[in-house]
Amino acid sequence: MTFDLKPGERLDDLQTKNLRIIQSDEVFSFSLDAVLLAHYVSLRNRDRVLDMGTGNGVIPLLLASRSDLPRREEIVGLELQERLADMAQRNVSGNELEHTIKIVQGDLREAIQHFGHESFDVVTCNPPYRPAGIGDASVNPHIAIARFELTCTLEDVIVNAAKLLKFNGKFAMVHRPDRLPDIIALMRTHRLEPKRLLLVHPRAHLRPNILLIEGIKGGKPELRIDPPLLVHTDDGVYTQAIQDIYAGRGEFAR
Amino acid sequence: MTFDLKPGERLDDLQTKNLRIIQSDEVFSFSLDAVLLAHYVSLRNRDRVLDMGTGNGVIPLLLASRSDLPRREEIVGLELQERLADMAQRNVSGNELEHTIKIVQGDLREAIQHFGHESFDVVTCNPPYRPAGIGDASVNPHIAIARFELTCTLEDVIVNAAKLLKFNGKFAMVHRPDRLPDIIALMRTHRLEPKRLLLVHPRAHLRPNILLIEGIKGGKPELRIDPPLLVHTDDGVYTQAIQDIYAGRGEFAR
Repeated sequence: MTFDLKPGERLDDLQTKNLRIIQSDEVFSFSLDAVLLAHYVSLRNRDRVLDMGTGNGVIPLLLASRSDLPRREEIVGLELQERLADMAQRNVSGNELEHTIKIVQGDLREAIQHFGHESFDVVTCNPPYRPAGIGDASVNPHIAIARFELTCTLEDVIVNAAKLLKFNGKFAMVHRPDRLPDIIALMRTHRLEPKRLLLVHPRAHLRPNILLIEGIKGGKPELRIDPPLLVHTDDGVYTQAIQDIYAGRGEFAR
Repeated sequence: MTFDLKPGERLDDLQTKNLRIIQSDEVFSFSLDAVLLAHYVSLRNRDRVLDMGTGNGVIPLLLASRSDLPRREEIVGLELQERLADMAQRNVSGNELEHTIKIVQGDLREAIQHFGHESFDVVTCNPPYRPAGIGDASVNPHIAIARFELTCTLEDVIVNAAKLLKFNGKFAMVHRPDRLPDIIALMRTHRLEPKRLLLVHPRAHLRPNILLIEGIKGGKPELRIDPPLLVHTDDGVYTQAIQDIYAGRGEFAR
């Protein structure tokens, strides 16, 4: 494995399946949120998967390494920012995953023109969480685009995921709990029926700060909410569940 | 306190503030769900409150006893079934709460004609949880109406709550977690913005089987999801939180 590092970048260990990943605090570093989403989404062998706003490609890399699914048709990582798409491409090459993962630079709002309607079995997204306008000018442009709804809103994500998915295809997203009504209302409007919800709490007695949701295009109404996932024990260390997920052993109920 | 019991009825201790309650397994017995809702809903002094589908009046009785609010303008319990409305009225009289609680027999789908638009500060409801048609014929008619959407659907509840509430008034409901998308989508459609959500789990490692939700008419979008409420410890006894709620000491974060 050889990784082509550029100035300001570092090579981190993804701590699963010998994967390594180029990151940069200037432009993009992956978070627990992305790791959780990659393990949460339901996948079947030979699914064609799109990760919208893939950043440095962390979600495609983790999806390609999931031990429950040895064969995958294709994972596409779509990224708007040229600098990040380039980093994602070098992560794919460095991990020798070119046969599984394709990185495409482009705007998810124009993804239909590129890929066509109903072209994916699964769409994943770790979108910007916060509406534009509050604090988006105080960070650098790369970070601002990842955190704030500057180049895509929640509705852009859901509208385009709904178009890109085949009937019965799955949409999985990580987001903030305070946006749950927006998420459910938009998914319903665009016929991505919410089927699974997981709330992630920093500790047992604290409010959730991450949600994972999966919907099925054209699915029947009936949501399954899972037991809460706790990140830290009361002693402040990672729970066994989170350690297992980071180590690639984590199994979400599906 | 004198209670006028009819055949098949029994007098139970509500275990809080010396309240007692007439119940009957033939027609209606209150559950944990009603107790949780009565403690969950946000109340201010002098709020005018409507409990839709009040059954034997358990929610008004518990609301009238909440120690955080010594003064209440009026609590109305609306009940479709004559036999239950009569039982609720005897519960009000027996507990000497006639000055606070009014029981009205009627259909919530016609409540606007009776009470007028925007006539309440708070509306509560512990509605039937299951759609009509699956199992509704196998229980007696009183129980069937309480459990199945025979005489009112979720949409009837939300549409009429929205009309009956003043602007900024609060709607609080207990329901099943698998209906959350229906609940959120309908509340949004009728401008009851979901603001608080609590999931109740039988034990820490089990899925939630009760949800409590509160919305504000005309409220701004931002949902607060609280830490999970656990009913039983791993040893199978009530948690301290549930013991406190039953004893009238329970304080939900508001």
